Amino acid sequence: MGRMRKVLIIGVGAGDPEHVTVQAINAMNAVDVFFVLDKDSAATELTAARRALVSRYVTRAGSRTVVIADPPRDRAAADYAGAVKDWRDERTRLLAAAIERELGPDGVGGILAWGDPALYDGTIRILQDLVPFEVIPGISSVQILTARHRVTLNRVAGAVLITTGRRLAAGWPDGADDVVVMLDASLSCRRYRSEPIDIYWGAYLGTPDEILISGRLDDVIDEIESVRAAARERKGWIMDTYLLRRLES
Amino acid sequence: MGRMRKVLIIGVGAGDPEHVTVQAINAMNAVDVFFVLDKDSAATELTAARRALVSRYVTRAGSRTVVIADPPRDRAAADYAGAVKDWRDERTRLLAAAIERELGPDGVGGILAWGDPALYDGTIRILQDLVPFEVIPGISSVQILTARHRVTLNRVAGAVLITTGRRLAAGWPDGADDVVVMLDASLSCRRYRSEPIDIYWGAYLGTPDEILISGRLDDVIDEIESVRAAARERKGWIMDTYLLRRLES
Ligand SMILES: C[S@@+](CC[C@H](N)C(=O)[O-])C[C@H]1O[C@@H](n2cnc3c(N)ncnc32)[C@H](O)[C@@H]1O
Ligand SMILES: C[S@@+](CC[C@H](N)C(=O)[O-])C[C@H]1O[C@@H](n2cnc3c(N)ncnc32)[C@H](O)[C@@H]1O
Repeated sequence: MGRMRKVLIIGVGAGDPEHVTVQAINAMNAVDVFFVLDKDSAATELTAARRALVSRYVTRAGSRTVVIADPPRDRAAADYAGAVKDWRDERTRLLAAAIERELGPDGVGGILAWGDPALYDGTIRILQDLVPFEVIPGISSVQILTARHRVTLNRVAGAVLITTGRRLAAGWPDGADDVVVMLDASLSCRRYRSEPIDIYWGAYLGTPDEILISGRLDDVIDEIESVRAAARERKGWIMDTYLLRRLES
Repeated sequence: MGRMRKVLIIGVGAGDPEHVTVQAINAMNAVDVFFVLDKDSAATELTAARRALVSRYVTRAGSRTVVIADPPRDRAAADYAGAVKDWRDERTRLLAAAIERELGPDGVGGILAWGDPALYDGTIRILQDLVPFEVIPGISSVQILTARHRVTLNRVAGAVLITTGRRLAAGWPDGADDVVVMLDASLSCRRYRSEPIDIYWGAYLGTPDEILISGRLDDVIDEIESVRAAARERKGWIMDTYLLRRLES
């Protein structure tokens, strides 16, 4: 029985090389061609981190890496979803061409996804109509956040909302008391500082640059803001996530 | 510098032994005494699974396992949160006594948590005021669910709510279009069958008994119900999770 061309989307954790699973290591070792979609300056560092994972964990000889330059993305677009879609369409075309060109009819492609591939990552959607694929879960930044702060995600019998900075900026989500915020360019939680909310904030989680700050939102938001600005200035980019927990008032 | 007594809460994934991370393997190998809190029949099988992980991954000699019989739990209590609290208090007392008795002043204890320790798991809360501890994240059942169905958790720029069957039974969560349901004893989603919702359902995820069903809720809910009842009958217990995705109507 012939193998069939397929691509493995491999979640590799969001910073700590030790967050890679045994399944991800085995998957990496089954890959013939790694496809890398490269983006901006943060992405360059993330790409380097992924490359380091490959050299750390891939023991099988003969796999190679193909880098696909990412199309430019209109981050200022008013129609955010539309801009993401255009960008994804172009990305899809480039990836499809690379798979066609580089992967034999029974070759195994690999794409390393930052964190967990299901969480705010476009790879699954890109491959959906392109090629047979499998998904290998990975530790997400949300899990590193709670682990490092040593807190639970949910409260007893409670619910948790995972959302974006953009959505939080538009208003506090209905009915939610425990909210994880990702993709927040500017600490949208600041506007809730006068409310009884605890924050657990983390940047560069799982990496040597990791920063953790927690406390009553009103008490720590200024500190987070200045620490965040300084870190972003120093490194040129920032990756941060936080959990907001509304207290009974 | 002396080591200090501490306990590692180690997330070990929710079924597949290959979902264990390198960090979890290293942590398991640093443990002197594993503490196991045993529960009901599902738990007995889960305890066996955890034991298998220890024998698979622990290469260091000399660690041992201490089993703590779980106190009975009043699952029928009207005051759910209160019953959970009583049960947790008693569990805490038993664990505290075992740590005191079994772990030297510089010993490293270990507790293997199913899935990710931050998600609907009481271990972090139990240890909070008891002993210094660290948390090692693990692949959660939610991540296996999305990986196996090869779907994303969130839609583009969207939010996701993680909630319980009990809460979903009380009403559709305000403002949520993508909802993960855990701890659901009886498919509370059934009441929404006439609405435009896709379901991605999974039982015994990551194990050889894994079952996956997906489709329009109204089309597949009867099948899920009968497959679920048969599986539960066969094994004596069930562990299932699902993602509901509300479509534009
Ligand atoms: C495009 S999403 C990818 C999320 C990723 N799939 C995951 O599972 O963590 C990028 C966002 O994830 C969060 N993030 C990813 N890695 C992070 C890290 N190491 N520390 C803090 N936040 C991180 C930030 O909120 C960032 O804006
Ligand atoms: C007490 S919670 C523990 C969750 C765990 N900490 C995690 O990260 O998955 C138990 C619930 O998790 C879900 N669950 C855990 N393992 C599962 C599996 N292998 N397959 C399907 N659902 C699972 C079910 O909804 C179950 O009711």
